[in-house]
Amino acid sequence: MPISKPMSLRDQMPPAHPFDDDKLKEECGVFGAVGVENAASVVALGLHALQHRGQEAGGIVTHDFAHGFSSARRFGYVRDNFTDAETMATLPGPIGIGHVRYSTAGSKGATQIRDVQPFFGEFSMGGAAIAHNGNITNALALRKELVERGSIFQSSSDSECIIHLMARSMGKKIPDRMEEALRKVEGAFSVVAMTRTKLIGCRDPLGVRPLVLGQLGDGWVLASETCALDIINATFIREIEPGEMVVASEKGVESHFPFRRAKSRFCIFEHVYFSRPDSILGGRSVYETRENIGRELAKENPVDADLVCPVPDSGTPAAIGYSLESGIPYAMGIIRNQYMGRTFIEPSESIRNMGVRLKLNVNRALVKGKRIILVDDSVVRGTTSRKIKEMILEAGAAEVHFRIASPPTAWPCFYGVDTPQREKLLAATMTEEEMRSHLGVDSLKFISLDGLYRAVGEANGRDPKAPAYCDACFSGEYPVKPADMVEQGFEMNTAAE
Amino acid sequence: MPISKPMSLRDQMPPAHPFDDDKLKEECGVFGAVGVENAASVVALGLHALQHRGQEAGGIVTHDFAHGFSSARRFGYVRDNFTDAETMATLPGPIGIGHVRYSTAGSKGATQIRDVQPFFGEFSMGGAAIAHNGNITNALALRKELVERGSIFQSSSDSECIIHLMARSMGKKIPDRMEEALRKVEGAFSVVAMTRTKLIGCRDPLGVRPLVLGQLGDGWVLASETCALDIINATFIREIEPGEMVVASEKGVESHFPFRRAKSRFCIFEHVYFSRPDSILGGRSVYETRENIGRELAKENPVDADLVCPVPDSGTPAAIGYSLESGIPYAMGIIRNQYMGRTFIEPSESIRNMGVRLKLNVNRALVKGKRIILVDDSVVRGTTSRKIKEMILEAGAAEVHFRIASPPTAWPCFYGVDTPQREKLLAATMTEEEMRSHLGVDSLKFISLDGLYRAVGEANGRDPKAPAYCDACFSGEYPVKPADMVEQGFEMNTAAE
Amino acid sequence: MPISKPMSLRDQMPPAHPFDDDKLKEECGVFGAVGVENAASVVALGLHALQHRGQEAGGIVTHDFAHGFSSARRFGYVRDNFTDAETMATLPGPIGIGHVRYSTAGSKGATQIRDVQPFFGEFSMGGAAIAHNGNITNALALRKELVERGSIFQSSSDSECIIHLMARSMGKKIPDRMEEALRKVEGAFSVVAMTRTKLIGCRDPLGVRPLVLGQLGDGWVLASETCALDIINATFIREIEPGEMVVASEKGVESHFPFRRAKSRFCIFEHVYFSRPDSILGGRSVYETRENIGRELAKENPVDADLVCPVPDSGTPAAIGYSLESGIPYAMGIIRNQYMGRTFIEPSESIRNMGVRLKLNVNRALVKGKRIILVDDSVVRGTTSRKIKEMILEAGAAEVHFRIASPPTAWPCFYGVDTPQREKLLAATMTEEEMRSHLGVDSLKFISLDGLYRAVGEANGRDPKAPAYCDACFSGEYPVKPADMVEQGFEMNTAAE
Amino acid sequence: MPISKPMSLRDQMPPAHPFDDDKLKEECGVFGAVGVENAASVVALGLHALQHRGQEAGGIVTHDFAHGFSSARRFGYVRDNFTDAETMATLPGPIGIGHVRYSTAGSKGATQIRDVQPFFGEFSMGGAAIAHNGNITNALALRKELVERGSIFQSSSDSECIIHLMARSMGKKIPDRMEEALRKVEGAFSVVAMTRTKLIGCRDPLGVRPLVLGQLGDGWVLASETCALDIINATFIREIEPGEMVVASEKGVESHFPFRRAKSRFCIFEHVYFSRPDSILGGRSVYETRENIGRELAKENPVDADLVCPVPDSGTPAAIGYSLESGIPYAMGIIRNQYMGRTFIEPSESIRNMGVRLKLNVNRALVKGKRIILVDDSVVRGTTSRKIKEMILEAGAAEVHFRIASPPTAWPCFYGVDTPQREKLLAATMTEEEMRSHLGVDSLKFISLDGLYRAVGEANGRDPKAPAYCDACFSGEYPVKPADMVEQGFEMNTAAE
Repeated sequence: MPISKPMSLRDQMPPAHPFDDDKLKEECGVFGAVGVENAASVVALGLHALQHRGQEAGGIVTHDFAHGFSSARRFGYVRDNFTDAETMATLPGPIGIGHVRYSTAGSKGATQIRDVQPFFGEFSMGGAAIAHNGNITNALALRKELVERGSIFQSSSDSECIIHLMARSMGKKIPDRMEEALRKVEGAFSVVAMTRTKLIGCRDPLGVRPLVLGQLGDGWVLASETCALDIINATFIREIEPGEMVVASEKGVESHFPFRRAKSRFCIFEHVYFSRPDSILGGRSVYETRENIGRELAKENPVDADLVCPVPDSGTPAAIGYSLESGIPYAMGIIRNQYMGRTFIEPSESIRNMGVRLKLNVNRALVKGKRIILVDDSVVRGTTSRKIKEMILEAGAAEVHFRIASPPTAWPCFYGVDTPQREKLLAATMTEEEMRSHLGVDSLKFISLDGLYRAVGEANGRDPKAPAYCDACFSGEYPVKPADMVEQGFEMNTAAE
Repeated sequence: MPISKPMSLRDQMPPAHPFDDDKLKEECGVFGAVGVENAASVVALGLHALQHRGQEAGGIVTHDFAHGFSSARRFGYVRDNFTDAETMATLPGPIGIGHVRYSTAGSKGATQIRDVQPFFGEFSMGGAAIAHNGNITNALALRKELVERGSIFQSSSDSECIIHLMARSMGKKIPDRMEEALRKVEGAFSVVAMTRTKLIGCRDPLGVRPLVLGQLGDGWVLASETCALDIINATFIREIEPGEMVVASEKGVESHFPFRRAKSRFCIFEHVYFSRPDSILGGRSVYETRENIGRELAKENPVDADLVCPVPDSGTPAAIGYSLESGIPYAMGIIRNQYMGRTFIEPSESIRNMGVRLKLNVNRALVKGKRIILVDDSVVRGTTSRKIKEMILEAGAAEVHFRIASPPTAWPCFYGVDTPQREKLLAATMTEEEMRSHLGVDSLKFISLDGLYRAVGEANGRDPKAPAYCDACFSGEYPVKPADMVEQGFEMNTAAE
Repeated sequence: MPISKPMSLRDQMPPAHPFDDDKLKEECGVFGAVGVENAASVVALGLHALQHRGQEAGGIVTHDFAHGFSSARRFGYVRDNFTDAETMATLPGPIGIGHVRYSTAGSKGATQIRDVQPFFGEFSMGGAAIAHNGNITNALALRKELVERGSIFQSSSDSECIIHLMARSMGKKIPDRMEEALRKVEGAFSVVAMTRTKLIGCRDPLGVRPLVLGQLGDGWVLASETCALDIINATFIREIEPGEMVVASEKGVESHFPFRRAKSRFCIFEHVYFSRPDSILGGRSVYETRENIGRELAKENPVDADLVCPVPDSGTPAAIGYSLESGIPYAMGIIRNQYMGRTFIEPSESIRNMGVRLKLNVNRALVKGKRIILVDDSVVRGTTSRKIKEMILEAGAAEVHFRIASPPTAWPCFYGVDTPQREKLLAATMTEEEMRSHLGVDSLKFISLDGLYRAVGEANGRDPKAPAYCDACFSGEYPVKPADMVEQGFEMNTAAE
Repeated sequence: MPISKPMSLRDQMPPAHPFDDDKLKEECGVFGAVGVENAASVVALGLHALQHRGQEAGGIVTHDFAHGFSSARRFGYVRDNFTDAETMATLPGPIGIGHVRYSTAGSKGATQIRDVQPFFGEFSMGGAAIAHNGNITNALALRKELVERGSIFQSSSDSECIIHLMARSMGKKIPDRMEEALRKVEGAFSVVAMTRTKLIGCRDPLGVRPLVLGQLGDGWVLASETCALDIINATFIREIEPGEMVVASEKGVESHFPFRRAKSRFCIFEHVYFSRPDSILGGRSVYETRENIGRELAKENPVDADLVCPVPDSGTPAAIGYSLESGIPYAMGIIRNQYMGRTFIEPSESIRNMGVRLKLNVNRALVKGKRIILVDDSVVRGTTSRKIKEMILEAGAAEVHFRIASPPTAWPCFYGVDTPQREKLLAATMTEEEMRSHLGVDSLKFISLDGLYRAVGEANGRDPKAPAYCDACFSGEYPVKPADMVEQGFEMNTAAE
């Protein structure tokens, strides 16, 4: 396997997923537990509930005093790798953390197992492991400096900087070293870490990525989303605050605020697509927020039609909302093949050519002769949208109206989401009418940015001077300067500044 | 691996699926293609679309004149086994058949790879392969006789009888031998078979299991359901008729009726659960039929409530129908983990204990304080229903009303469906009120058998003298005597006769 | 995988082993045990000791009354497949048989797992398994007839005929059926078989292949060679006689002679190469016989030289004999890489090109400037001999004299040995002087056929009217007509008749 | 897998090999090539020839400018892991190094893949990889200091210190950094390293472990032994001198002597056992040296007997020497199973109980009634020797006389050889007569230390003031103080100082 290659940042962007190139991809989910029996099983269940945040690989580290730290990292689903009794027996102890990942900012082409988190380091006072959701926007600069001083990197991941900064810190305790390390790091991060006895969680000052605290018996858990608390029947205590670091152990939970305070800028796309509908964000079910988005969308963009159909499964709550608001009946016009959770490895050509048919089928007898409103969560490249339109017209639909539950996606994300290069984003190069014509549909409408803010609970819409969320993918306004990317020549939306 | 053991039929019934014991399981899907480029890929795609009919294993046989017959049989999903270019290259040729299976009437405990179809036999005039959906009700008697005459069985499958009967036939052509063999066989069968140049399809005289014919370019395909035609963009020609045998080749399609004619008794449960909602049965979308069932259910069993929620995914169309008929809003109160397609292999105990939580999560913030109507397709053992009820009450629902889109399942199926022993069926031992009390819900109502017949299109409901469908699982009236089972002591519903 | 293809017998001859094409290959070893604790482990140890008789694959069948018959068949070495506790636990019982194989007369190209023995059949009175060492010379004709009557073959192996003949027999007991089957079979066979309680062994009337009986505690074992008795510390009782069938059970050992009596024609090449040097044949150590062959060779073909070196490892005992007889010091001039037990799978080209260097290295500092006598057991194609000569000359040897411990191999074997087609045998197309010139050595001498007979104990050499051994590979005189081959056009050495 | 655990050095000693506990184990072989086509294949062939120096795992690193550095590390034999075209294609380039290992000083229990060399580090001026044969005697102290300064270790190997010392060096070029690093390291090392264009080799000042230079076309190779030059047909140029560092590139070979000069103390056990008999050490074939040892042994310890038999395979050359000197005929009284190259993984109990029988068998018919001299290379724990004696007496030998080709092994090695703890060494706790009685043989004699020195070419035997070799395993005189071990409480042979 390749272990080192000079490459530009542009090269490092992973190729889009062959059959899913019309979706953005959350890059990670994190989970940790302390003070619980068989922490590895608790972590595995939590990661299973967070699998939608990263399907490529996962890892778990645990500790007990009889065996020291133990680790397992594997490609593939949690359910396939971290459920059998044999593997779980190799991960003993009452404390553990875990990570699921989609892909990395670091490696070109295939991810290597050494890029799979958690990362582990042995310090003079003992070992520590960390798992990171987000993206470090000054990782290249940090890495260069660390290598010059003698650190040896094992992975191509931006997250490895944190453990090397910790190793070089002169802090006496690991949480102190972690604070020091994270103060040198820019970008978005929700980090879960562990020592032999302590579980540590931390969110960046803007709180771009989610992280929640739960209680399980006498122990504590940290998770990217509340759905991971439900699966283990843990009690949801609260969200970790932007800029907060918590240290949980058998003695309880301590809270620190090691960074300069800043106004929260949570990722609005978590509401639109990334988070699971049964998770709770800001006190409300994500499902209900999405139903609201559908209602707003129906108010802003009504159309006369026979059926409202979701593009499954992510468009479903918004489609139900659209149907409830418009009074047009909801129906499953497109059926998803539930055995298509994962893509094919080096498929034969005739199979690759089937593309979206492997995953979706039109309910032919249902849509024939009908005027169909298709509700989808977003349009990224537009390739899947075109194929769905073709399938539904082939099946005899009379009209096809696309309604999109987010504004046009026109800018890449640098905070932990896998987005195509800007020129591949349909909305970066086309007007709405050009997109409609390109997709070949009867109408195409997006919810407005204000409408989206209303749906997530901002009654007055977006405050352009101090937006409550990070919406860089729609607005091009980046709350943290993507330093490495700007160094490489990326041009931000200066108009918006 | 065990290769032979004396066992009673009762022993041979496979243990219920650990997390899915509240569903009946279709045991097989079949597919065949002739006159197409790269038949193996066409067959693989068809089987992928039929994966819901059997998830345990699959196999494909192809033929071309340069390589002879080729075969591959594997445990697991089609998408994991029959998509890579390397495997597909080992299956050359313009003709092929395939099979997916859930489990067999033959083997106790784990299925062996030698039980995976298609089965192949080399006869003096050339080879033939067959794939069978259904169940042969006189298989034990046939097997005994064949062994006494010197046939060596390789599997524990009832279907292997067919190929041995063909081997011993004195027919000059393979289709003649197949006719002769199938005339000796009792029970339910939809068979797809192939010679070097001919694709053969046949349904039993009652047509219990489905089989459809499609056209793909100049070639022909046979499939259990029309959704398998859609995935390869084939044209749906017609259903194979009960008792019909078709022989398709590059010259076209011939039709024969080798059996004594009988009134059709198609499996009504295909409408309720087995078939995919996007398949077409009897000229109508299965989805629409299920929506109709939901409407009938709402008419027969109304209740005042806040939300109609499906038990995902199989209860969804009936729940939508119930909502449309009742006017009570439809909502996704239970979210399915989409990464839970397959169960765990030897899970650690703490993971096994999570049971249904691994697969389903209640949308906590949504259902809190609400009166919920839960729509499910059927109740088999009732174990999952109990757990769902517990989860939804834990999440704070005010009331829970179960509405079931089929009548009480009180009798085992002997025609190709995996059912528990009769005493494990909740409805075999309890009245409706006892079931309600056992499940601990506010109300529990099933659609009536007449209501179900109306929903599938019989305006006058069920004709008790000549029912249009096989409904033995509800009525105990078996249209073909299950000879081997009766021999073993099974008592049919003689009251009904 | 291919499951059927019309092919000529000539096609069916497996391609020579890439790095071992200068050796004949014994095709099988068989072993059985009854009345012992954990028969599978006993069988596995026996097969491990017989691994030199077949390295490609192996299989074991056992029986106990709690589990019925159990089977495991695998590609690769016994030590890799049949030693771990997990596999062995799947093979319970006090009776079992096993088989190791090199390659088959049946399949072209790669062997399929379904060709790996033992073969198993379920008859009306119970199951039986058989393992066969040898070759059935009328297998094609038998197979054709069996298929016409409705038998379905699962493998391409000639040995499968036996189990089908047994299935069709009307004998009441399995040993009776086996007698009846073996009377229809022509060629060479040492068969080990088992029922639920009986271990059966049988040699063909000429006794071409070896089979011995041993005792282990209260139980009995059958093995191809005595070295397989040593490894389990069993007592060597006697050789099974040509044409004898023994039936061993907890009650003891019965003996039958079901065939017409004939004069023994044991394979003389077992003495030269196939059998292990620590086995006992005809009351004498094979090692001593080979030392004798070396002495005879030195008497017949003396030469003045500095060192006698074996071609390792098979030439070693004859080289020691040559040294003892000639007084020329014995030395290891060629060193064998002991990690080269198995050949490479699809090696890269640069590695394939190294050929014999991967396996052998000349002891450069030792041979430099010396006159070397190289003793090898046989010359088949001569390819390896040429490469060894090149290596030894490159290392600076002054002279190279080849001495071969068998007569020129000029005819293929049809009794269970893998030989190239006749035209590939060096001695079939060249005189001794032509071979010497082709190999480019200073001298090349073979032991005479009479010398070989003297060395194995026939004081008067070979009796041309009634030879004591099968020596068809040297003489072209086939003691059993190879019927299928003659049908295919093979011409025997009629001059010799 | 465990990734960290506090353990004492004593714990870290790997458990003896179940069937080979009577041998010392060389821990590593190294190989490198530059300026050759397809370096990975050249390295793989070299490692295959060095497999006797380490069988547990192996690794290769290569570099070319199109792909950067590439790496593959695997458990098992070179022939199984590094020969297939697919793997070799992942290791492109004209420069590469490789390593085979038996076991490590670092990890308790099973080795982890991250302990497998070569180790790689990316420095600011580019990457470097190293492979190490030997043992660093101050590794624990160095590691402690490096961790305190922020280095993160990935393995438990002592060798990883070198790459971290290089990473922290301020040297401008990688060879300078390597010199600086190796000056801080104590103990025995023969290191092969590579940059993008340079192949570097270095031996410690005493030259304890071997390293040789060869030429292949226009390129250069470094190897532990000359047998690895032979396999690729390279020309043996010379041994690297003790304390020498060579830097080979397309421009030629430079030589440096970065350390204080010292008198050579080459490991005398390389002559006795570790090196392959076809390698050349000090200008002479190792085979001939061992034959000489046998002759010396015969002179020092004659006995009247019928046969001289080696304990295969390592005792063979000395047995031949003993036979030549004594005039007693040489014979193969014990036959080694050539399919037993590797041990069983978790064998079932009945198989484990067979112990040495799996590997060796007595040539029963040959030894019966004879007086046997058994020649072995060394006695470590004595367990195998006892079993061999039992087997040979069981087979009926009249007398057994052990002759050992090395002095009693009474002290552990700390320079790269896996030895049991001192108290497990038979000679550490027993006199020669006690050992004879313990083994139960008629006589037991070892060659004297002076005799061994004479056999390796020191005509006057050992100079006690300035021995020409490291013979610490016999004498307890350690030429480099084993600092970490002394820190842990190990007591050296101070009497000898």
